[in-house]
Amino acid sequence: MTQYEPFFSRAGQTMRESAIRKMGAVLAQARDMISFAPGYPAEDAFAWEAFAEIARELLSGEDGSVLQYGPTRGYKPLRDFIAGLMQERHITAAASSVVVTTGSQQGLDLLARVLFDPEDVVLVELPSYTGAITAFRSVGASLVGVRQNPDGIDLDELDETIVRLRGEGRRVKALYVVPNFQNPTGLLLGAAKRPRLAEWAETRNVLVIEDDPYRDLYFPDVASERDTRPIAADDSHGRVIYLSSFSKTLAPGFRVAWLHAPEPIAAKLEIAKQAEDLCSGGLDQRVVYEACRRGILAKNLPRLREHYQHKRDVMVKALHQHLAGKLTWPEPRGGFFLWAKLSGSLQTDALLARARERGVIFVAGSAFFVDGSGAQHLRLSFSAPPPDRIEEGVARLAAAVSDASAQAGEAATHAGSR
Amino acid sequence: MTQYEPFFSRAGQTMRESAIRKMGAVLAQARDMISFAPGYPAEDAFAWEAFAEIARELLSGEDGSVLQYGPTRGYKPLRDFIAGLMQERHITAAASSVVVTTGSQQGLDLLARVLFDPEDVVLVELPSYTGAITAFRSVGASLVGVRQNPDGIDLDELDETIVRLRGEGRRVKALYVVPNFQNPTGLLLGAAKRPRLAEWAETRNVLVIEDDPYRDLYFPDVASERDTRPIAADDSHGRVIYLSSFSKTLAPGFRVAWLHAPEPIAAKLEIAKQAEDLCSGGLDQRVVYEACRRGILAKNLPRLREHYQHKRDVMVKALHQHLAGKLTWPEPRGGFFLWAKLSGSLQTDALLARARERGVIFVAGSAFFVDGSGAQHLRLSFSAPPPDRIEEGVARLAAAVSDASAQAGEAATHAGSR
Repeated sequence: MTQYEPFFSRAGQTMRESAIRKMGAVLAQARDMISFAPGYPAEDAFAWEAFAEIARELLSGEDGSVLQYGPTRGYKPLRDFIAGLMQERHITAAASSVVVTTGSQQGLDLLARVLFDPEDVVLVELPSYTGAITAFRSVGASLVGVRQNPDGIDLDELDETIVRLRGEGRRVKALYVVPNFQNPTGLLLGAAKRPRLAEWAETRNVLVIEDDPYRDLYFPDVASERDTRPIAADDSHGRVIYLSSFSKTLAPGFRVAWLHAPEPIAAKLEIAKQAEDLCSGGLDQRVVYEACRRGILAKNLPRLREHYQHKRDVMVKALHQHLAGKLTWPEPRGGFFLWAKLSGSLQTDALLARARERGVIFVAGSAFFVDGSGAQHLRLSFSAPPPDRIEEGVARLAAAVSDASAQAGEAATHAGSR
Repeated sequence: MTQYEPFFSRAGQTMRESAIRKMGAVLAQARDMISFAPGYPAEDAFAWEAFAEIARELLSGEDGSVLQYGPTRGYKPLRDFIAGLMQERHITAAASSVVVTTGSQQGLDLLARVLFDPEDVVLVELPSYTGAITAFRSVGASLVGVRQNPDGIDLDELDETIVRLRGEGRRVKALYVVPNFQNPTGLLLGAAKRPRLAEWAETRNVLVIEDDPYRDLYFPDVASERDTRPIAADDSHGRVIYLSSFSKTLAPGFRVAWLHAPEPIAAKLEIAKQAEDLCSGGLDQRVVYEACRRGILAKNLPRLREHYQHKRDVMVKALHQHLAGKLTWPEPRGGFFLWAKLSGSLQTDALLARARERGVIFVAGSAFFVDGSGAQHLRLSFSAPPPDRIEEGVARLAAAVSDASAQAGEAATHAGSR
């Protein structure tokens, strides 16, 4: 038998499966499993009719380039539209510096390849998005976490961290941050902190990677567009690389996202993308562009905000009803996630095993912490399941907490009796 | 102004644009340019009507998962179909070891990341496909070329090369080979050489990366399915990683290709793909699957063979008419490419500049040689332009050859007069 281990690269040897994707696989296999795990958008909120109509027109064959190879940076009219979208977000953007990516995951991966060598340091929030952690680690970068306050990353600790690391001779190249309805915490970065971060990047000669997929999905009862002003909007020194996506607002199956970077970086990203997949899907980019151009995206957003706000209400109400005193959480003001912490000594890994038995899954918090902490946290996505399933899922979760607590109690009793 | 150079990784610093993609950009900007450059399939041969009908059904909204995130290895029914397709190609394939990729370019890139460290050696044909060269070099691998005979790679030189390199202490991990209608030469690997390559891989403890996008596009007048038997068909030791694609037979805009690898390698590729783009496009995979399931692909293939065979005829006839004695080439027996060599001392870089002035482009041969040779070769793609444009393009090319020869003659005269 051929031994394959000796053939793997160092990167290949150290690769580990993502906790979120693993939960996706669990979900695919199980019957009647309620999933609070992957942050999937709600399929019934997609603009199906508009997409069908657009696809029918695009596939008439009149314009053959729809299904041909396309430019690596993306379909030009879409890039122009994206530049306009960024202007609406208060960012001075050039269409020429927009790179369309095969989902934002590719954007993060391309940045990792173009920017980071093994041992380079990337600063991330504690906790942070696992997809970014995976992409940055895949090139061997070291991730160092910075604590978050209720209004996002702690700027004092951030600055102390970079000073300390550089004092130790480490090369710190970038800060990765999700400013709006962060994955996994749902937190919103405070308004005053945003321009300060842009200035800090200039002062400390570092890049900011701003990942902003959820900004359009603020919940009108507690947040507004004004709260979501990007860091890039106040970047006058070309320090901020901005990523956003159509996955949460149109549909993830199109795999269409983008990044905007200073031109010297965008040029490198384009070459890296040539090597990675030549170009993103032609039909997908056209459908997304037409949905934008025809106002489908803009028209859909208020509906989506109501949709996810309602689901947050349902989850929060059910949590109060079933798990009051056993879980605590900051109330989500937008996005897909509720970030909960277990009271007492119960840990989420143990809870997850019981939860699966009860027919509900979530992502254990430790996946999001680069410092090995987070053992009592869990990320609950309320975005995909319908309201009655959210209620049922929380009831199951409460039963699982009881199971796990009883088991822990028994274990403690056993330990005590010996 | 922010200086970005210090932020680039070593990989980022050394990235260079692909010659083929660059020609694509030239094409996009120019009016009335005839392109023999990128190997684009013919858009008028796509199954537009069938795609439109399939998309209409898929976008009814009945099955929400069509536009949702999907499994990283790909849509399960498509993977099952692909396993069947591989059986038809005489390969014992397991659907579980199939990974759907965002074009074969991603397959090559994933392999590079999972298998190759800087300084690892990959053996390639002289000349070889630039996309593979780019992907392998992006992780720092060293590429060493092996000469081709009219029936493909020279097995004696191949074995001498690996023995020599290992004698020098180099780590040779894999051979990359395009056995059918190779890009760029159009050559077909001899039938007897195929099983010998599989055995050689076992003997020398090396992997074979078999890239097979053109095999269905043999030209019935001079080739048949029997000539295209994959190396993987005779691989009894798990040495061959097999890649193929729907880009040339359905459409590249879907970005749907696949690879089949021994399970330990497939598992690593899946994790690498998680980091790279999470999953390939959902709608794209479904359209491709339905086109397969409904027999659109199978029905279309004989038509495609006739289509490209006819275009080859047109190009070959025009070359005989306009460039007899000035160019030589092996007659393509399938695929998209005619690989030509200039007679005399004229070089293709000089010719390309004149050709652009005359309104025709191609890819200069040197892009395909990892050893710096190929200065008199050019790759002419006959796949995309309609027949009358092929004729006109060859006439322009002939004019450009005259221009370049005259210029070279003048230069020689000037040199002589001094």
